[in-house]
Amino acid sequence: MTNQEPILLREDRPDGRTTLVLNRPAQFNSLSNAMLETLLAELQSIAADKTVRVVVLQGAGKAFCAGHDLKEMRSNHDKAFMQALFKLCAKVMLTIQEMPQPVIARIHGIATAAGCQLVSMCDLAVAADVAKFAVSGINVGLFCSTPAVGLARNMGRKEALEMLLTGEFINAGEAQRRGLVNRVVALGDLDEAVEHLVQSILAKSPVAVATGKQMFYKQLEMGIEAAYQYAGEVMACNMMAGDAAEGIDAFIEKRKPVWQAA
Amino acid sequence: MTNQEPILLREDRPDGRTTLVLNRPAQFNSLSNAMLETLLAELQSIAADKTVRVVVLQGAGKAFCAGHDLKEMRSNHDKAFMQALFKLCAKVMLTIQEMPQPVIARIHGIATAAGCQLVSMCDLAVAADVAKFAVSGINVGLFCSTPAVGLARNMGRKEALEMLLTGEFINAGEAQRRGLVNRVVALGDLDEAVEHLVQSILAKSPVAVATGKQMFYKQLEMGIEAAYQYAGEVMACNMMAGDAAEGIDAFIEKRKPVWQAA
Amino acid sequence: MTNQEPILLREDRPDGRTTLVLNRPAQFNSLSNAMLETLLAELQSIAADKTVRVVVLQGAGKAFCAGHDLKEMRSNHDKAFMQALFKLCAKVMLTIQEMPQPVIARIHGIATAAGCQLVSMCDLAVAADVAKFAVSGINVGLFCSTPAVGLARNMGRKEALEMLLTGEFINAGEAQRRGLVNRVVALGDLDEAVEHLVQSILAKSPVAVATGKQMFYKQLEMGIEAAYQYAGEVMACNMMAGDAAEGIDAFIEKRKPVWQAA
Repeated sequence: MTNQEPILLREDRPDGRTTLVLNRPAQFNSLSNAMLETLLAELQSIAADKTVRVVVLQGAGKAFCAGHDLKEMRSNHDKAFMQALFKLCAKVMLTIQEMPQPVIARIHGIATAAGCQLVSMCDLAVAADVAKFAVSGINVGLFCSTPAVGLARNMGRKEALEMLLTGEFINAGEAQRRGLVNRVVALGDLDEAVEHLVQSILAKSPVAVATGKQMFYKQLEMGIEAAYQYAGEVMACNMMAGDAAEGIDAFIEKRKPVWQAA
Repeated sequence: MTNQEPILLREDRPDGRTTLVLNRPAQFNSLSNAMLETLLAELQSIAADKTVRVVVLQGAGKAFCAGHDLKEMRSNHDKAFMQALFKLCAKVMLTIQEMPQPVIARIHGIATAAGCQLVSMCDLAVAADVAKFAVSGINVGLFCSTPAVGLARNMGRKEALEMLLTGEFINAGEAQRRGLVNRVVALGDLDEAVEHLVQSILAKSPVAVATGKQMFYKQLEMGIEAAYQYAGEVMACNMMAGDAAEGIDAFIEKRKPVWQAA
Repeated sequence: MTNQEPILLREDRPDGRTTLVLNRPAQFNSLSNAMLETLLAELQSIAADKTVRVVVLQGAGKAFCAGHDLKEMRSNHDKAFMQALFKLCAKVMLTIQEMPQPVIARIHGIATAAGCQLVSMCDLAVAADVAKFAVSGINVGLFCSTPAVGLARNMGRKEALEMLLTGEFINAGEAQRRGLVNRVVALGDLDEAVEHLVQSILAKSPVAVATGKQMFYKQLEMGIEAAYQYAGEVMACNMMAGDAAEGIDAFIEKRKPVWQAA
């Protein structure tokens, strides 16, 4: 590691998967203003890039992500700075949900405060059994208000509130039980478990994945009747697109489907 | 099984329970347009029938229900057909929630795509340990958008999204852990477990069950203050109806209550 | 116990914790009109009292709380009485959520009907392994409509609806699995487990706890974009308040923070 290394690494593979690595290991990959801006730019670039089909988000070094950069925040003790910072952070988080590609968090170490929020806002999450999760701002007098938005949409309210009020860690198994992560494996099996999800998504129709992911979050915000009306329209369009016809024909003919490019 | 058998069987018992059997076993009880129309008509008929107190929904043959009829959908490659199909399907699903009688899904085999959605929209669900659940449309290029509406209202968003994006099965125990089914038993004990719930509901006041079920889903769609205001009004009315007075008096006098007919 | 004892006991300790004891043990601490009025007055008094930092709510005698006072309800068979009763009850429940101090339910025995609702509306809950939970109004012809509002916001809809329709008890372990309580311990360890949470909260910044708790429930009622906007504003204000600066400085300097009084 040298000072010249970029704070965010991006690797695109020909199979359609892009890996983003938070790369401030000495700062436990904390989300400085620069990190958030870089991450937002990459996510927006990926969102517009039809060759990317799935994103893996991970951290360099010991931690997944330790949340905001507290030293930077103390050096900019100004309300306008704080408002801009949390607005930028929220934009990053919402972009993860709004972009067409599924984003998988790969958590090998601690995920705290806005780092835990990052996990909560990814579509899927795979954790090593040594990973730990906390929304620990309360320990320094700063209630994790924005992380609470994501956290409370992953688990029960008492479960979330206990974490927010006590700042205590939960382990990976407990995170899975509560719905914050999908799968927990030994650290040595983490890449294989992520790969399983990546391959599963890469094998699917690009248009169906993109349409479906975006539909999923939109209908969550609606009452159930409006959600059904909206989902029915989306599904009718999805059915009229080429891939569904091909997929069903392949299924009936017991052959592998050939999807259109995205 | 002959071609003359109806695609939906209905049995009404004198005790107030009605059993509906999806009866296209050779097609894994898939929800053809005709099946959905027949099911909707029966559900609407039951909703208006005060002699029916609880409904059990199950499938004939090997499967509970394998979702939409893909062959029929491919034979009608027309957007208006698709829109009408998903609208009809949503109407069936919402009718289950809106009708006064509790509907119990009895799942002895696979429940996939709209079949899994059917489970998610029933009030209660009992599964055999051999039952399996998936929203597998994504495997044929058709993201399960309408099933997602029900699924995401039964379990956590990451849990639902993993099923929707991978199309993979979860077993009955996992379905229970996530909130998709209430109870899991050995296949040989499935009828007894369903019977336990049926008897429990039949022993209750018809008006209290009907009022309560309908109130439950309505308040779920409200903010918490509006929900309390609404629920308080409903409960005051419930308390002034004859059965609550009888029920409380019987409780105080340590005797069995005698409920009014619905 | 004599007739002269107050129906609600309040103990304030110098460390900032207040204990409220429902004190109608012979009536299993049922929520008579007088009990609800007294409880509301105490909660409102605590809400305005900056020396109180955390509240523990518990019951005297065998039960935590057995819900509404059915005998009193039968002696006042009048719709206006019922409407006023459920309105008052809802006001108590919402006050628990709206007051700045976290409220911890300490459940050593049964919590039924509105007693179970009380648990669901507390911020945190610790149960003895012998505690049991039910929304049992349906057994006396009175569907637990207002308890359903709280219950359905703690656990999955099928899990809640099964309890509401059958009136059956769940044990403490199951209550924890569903999200109704945070922790389950042996009865002999109950006070220690509550004390752990109390001490954890007392060690935090008063203003951060108060701001955070109230923000948490407000953002839950919002769509995710509005929630992020609101939470970002709250967090920027929290960051500009003295305690966050002190907390972060103490963290960076590896010393204990000194919080401002509330």
